[in-house]
Amino acid sequence: MAPFAVLALASSALLAPALTRQQLEAFIASRQREIVSELVELVAIPNTAADTENARANASLVREMLRHRGLRTELLETDANPIVFGEWKAPGATRTLLLYSHYDGLGVDPKAWKQASPYAAILRDGRLEDGGKELPGPKTRASYQPEWRLYGRSVAHAKAHIVGLCAALDTLKASGVQPTSNLRVVIDGEESSGSPSLLSAIPRHRDKLGADLMLVLDGQAHPSGRPTLTFGARGWLLLELTVYGPKLPLHSGHYGNWAPNPGMRLAQLLASMKDAEGQVLVQGFYEGVVPVSPEEQAMMDAVPDDPARLMKLFGFAQPERPSLSLQQALQLPSLNVRGLSSAYVGPEARNVIPDRAVAALDVRLVKETPAGPIAEKIRAHVRAQGFHVVESEPDDETRARHPLIAKLVLRGATEAHRTSPLLPESRRVVEAVRSMLGEPPVLLRTTGGTVPITPFIQAMGFPAILLPTTNFDSNQQTENENLRLGHLFTGIVTLAAVLAMP
Amino acid sequence: MAPFAVLALASSALLAPALTRQQLEAFIASRQREIVSELVELVAIPNTAADTENARANASLVREMLRHRGLRTELLETDANPIVFGEWKAPGATRTLLLYSHYDGLGVDPKAWKQASPYAAILRDGRLEDGGKELPGPKTRASYQPEWRLYGRSVAHAKAHIVGLCAALDTLKASGVQPTSNLRVVIDGEESSGSPSLLSAIPRHRDKLGADLMLVLDGQAHPSGRPTLTFGARGWLLLELTVYGPKLPLHSGHYGNWAPNPGMRLAQLLASMKDAEGQVLVQGFYEGVVPVSPEEQAMMDAVPDDPARLMKLFGFAQPERPSLSLQQALQLPSLNVRGLSSAYVGPEARNVIPDRAVAALDVRLVKETPAGPIAEKIRAHVRAQGFHVVESEPDDETRARHPLIAKLVLRGATEAHRTSPLLPESRRVVEAVRSMLGEPPVLLRTTGGTVPITPFIQAMGFPAILLPTTNFDSNQQTENENLRLGHLFTGIVTLAAVLAMP
Repeated sequence: MAPFAVLALASSALLAPALTRQQLEAFIASRQREIVSELVELVAIPNTAADTENARANASLVREMLRHRGLRTELLETDANPIVFGEWKAPGATRTLLLYSHYDGLGVDPKAWKQASPYAAILRDGRLEDGGKELPGPKTRASYQPEWRLYGRSVAHAKAHIVGLCAALDTLKASGVQPTSNLRVVIDGEESSGSPSLLSAIPRHRDKLGADLMLVLDGQAHPSGRPTLTFGARGWLLLELTVYGPKLPLHSGHYGNWAPNPGMRLAQLLASMKDAEGQVLVQGFYEGVVPVSPEEQAMMDAVPDDPARLMKLFGFAQPERPSLSLQQALQLPSLNVRGLSSAYVGPEARNVIPDRAVAALDVRLVKETPAGPIAEKIRAHVRAQGFHVVESEPDDETRARHPLIAKLVLRGATEAHRTSPLLPESRRVVEAVRSMLGEPPVLLRTTGGTVPITPFIQAMGFPAILLPTTNFDSNQQTENENLRLGHLFTGIVTLAAVLAMP
Repeated sequence: MAPFAVLALASSALLAPALTRQQLEAFIASRQREIVSELVELVAIPNTAADTENARANASLVREMLRHRGLRTELLETDANPIVFGEWKAPGATRTLLLYSHYDGLGVDPKAWKQASPYAAILRDGRLEDGGKELPGPKTRASYQPEWRLYGRSVAHAKAHIVGLCAALDTLKASGVQPTSNLRVVIDGEESSGSPSLLSAIPRHRDKLGADLMLVLDGQAHPSGRPTLTFGARGWLLLELTVYGPKLPLHSGHYGNWAPNPGMRLAQLLASMKDAEGQVLVQGFYEGVVPVSPEEQAMMDAVPDDPARLMKLFGFAQPERPSLSLQQALQLPSLNVRGLSSAYVGPEARNVIPDRAVAALDVRLVKETPAGPIAEKIRAHVRAQGFHVVESEPDDETRARHPLIAKLVLRGATEAHRTSPLLPESRRVVEAVRSMLGEPPVLLRTTGGTVPITPFIQAMGFPAILLPTTNFDSNQQTENENLRLGHLFTGIVTLAAVLAMP
């Protein structure tokens, strides 16, 4: 028994199931072609946020899809791409849910895709990497197997979630069940650039955006494939650290041992930040992080992670912090060297003492370790190693004065958010899903990743839960993005359960 | 008084000067146009080693230049470009000098050059960076000022030395003085690829290549501008070190704190190799290095280095090893991070745990620290830090077995050489130059750089002295290579002094 089942069951009295999983699945089975076709048509419109004309075409189609389900819709104009807004009033409902997703997606490098166009979705009878073969006519199959995959940009991130929401509404209607909550739907067109327009829409549209609970329809379900609810996301703090050598690359023969080597000094500086067990040594880095409660620990212990399988898949023999489980590791802020550069390696390498060495760092933040103080602690750490810290290229005078110079530049920050899984709203959602699916969902106290929607959640101040329903191997950030159809179909059931929760 | 003057004067009795600096300079002044024109014509033939047709055209012209000075010449055919060989027998001479230079040069990126073609040499009335203006007609000036500079590929490295040798022979002839040594001239066409053909020519042409002393006509004089004699060169050992993370870049949110970060581990590994004072910590790295003798120390102390000027020019406040002078630093092997790479930095940086981090290293070797043992010591050091060391990409089994994996690949090695400045031949050359120029030359126990000719010197087993005569700011490895004419003219005097030494 998963220990968290105790927590979920405690609130089961709240639920009066009006429909069964079998009912919903039968309806979905009868509508597979329409569901997949709607997704293929939505994917057909290119959707980078910068392509404003197509962004508007996406918004129009999404609006039409929602209108077709009986929602009152409008486009909320912003400084950039419009937000699609939809509203549905549930008779007698005292609770409002805000359902969020987005229609924009990342750019594509068509050459890297194994299909004619990333926007002309194709169907395969399995995973490309496992030899999945293309099946003709993705919109005209007689039936669709759960293991089949649709390939195309944004099939998973996040157009599957938009289509899944529409299908969930259809499913409820066909079952004669109405949503039990007032619904507000917000479909963003700027997620890939951090949803700035959504944040700036708050002052103008606060009355439309308020809710008792936000559900973020985006992201990937747990690798186990089980329905997943996520109560938080880590933030990020992006930093770039540059250590200086001579003003120009110098001949490593004529000056080696004499001119300072920035690569070595950067290495020494980075090495000072973490011990051999992966513990960050920056003073105060973990300050404020409190131990998780026993209930939360039980929830984390119940997550069906399979570290041995992941390590085999990823090809490493030991985690960075061997004493922590994956879920424990994600509860802590991390410090990651995401890139290094200094002159050249490989055939282009030249015998120089480079003029600089650069490290791109990302810190994943947790709720207790906000970006500003962490950046300050890292700056203090660099100073404590003897470096003069600058924010722009050092001039001659600075170079003449300081033996060790490091430039530390902030490249961006998004805070973490976390909603307690112990809140009544949280328990209600968990129980709705558990009861409908007949098994406990995977409950993540936080995902390790960062969601751009966090500043909006924080500005609005409501609790928020992520309902990630696509497959974890969807390649959502890169080429050959794909959606396992079984995940789409189960996601519809999951979402219907939440829409119909008591 | 420069302490080494004592050493030089001790052997002054050997010299019976037959001509004066004034005599030589007057003749050179009368022949400036011919000297510069010959260099412009030689530079006009493109000379990358890979361009075999033009390489042969260079060889033919160089052969003709030597033949014109009365040398018996031939082309020594090799597996690649021919070696130009010339010989002159001095009546009654008991000593044979081997004079080495090369006609090949590095490739060019014409776009980076501030002239129509790198092979169409132009004249400027000063240094390009100081606003030097182009002067029309490099081959037709009435006179040539020492501060003027000729710009073109190989004007300095090393065609100036070939033309300088020819002019030195002309100068002696015009002065009615004959060289006092038998001369053998070897002009290489493969220097830029490490002179493999010269090495392989030894078995076939050993009788032509033997000598009592080799003079390497190549390289840059000391930045002070004073005539320079160099008794050794450091070698190099090029290594590439790769530290592995997951098989593919992983999402730094989903796996940060859990999947091992190769950038941090590489940083920790590199940091373990050097202390904060620049001392290499690899066990046995300095083994065998003996203190320099008092005479050599005096010679090093007399080198007119200007570290304050260099540090200002290069923009750093303190040398890597503050306790060592530049000359002291060059007597020791160095360990330099010449490049770093892991995923991306700057705008391309992505939030990944990279799959690998790579450091390109170069070790500058000294005579007492040959390449093989140093490579083994570095390998042992990496092992001692807990890494499993491989020589090719680790397979799944290796990844599953070892938490820390590093690939260490040897990318090339050239040993150091050093001829004692205390040998009679060395003293004789020093005294010839000192006596002719009226001031002590700069004597470098070793240059910090590496010369590809070292394996040839070692194979032949003769003492070798480098006579670098071009300006130190010649950009000889890059675009806008240039030759200060004053250096060319003084180089001719220097070389004539050596050719006429008793």
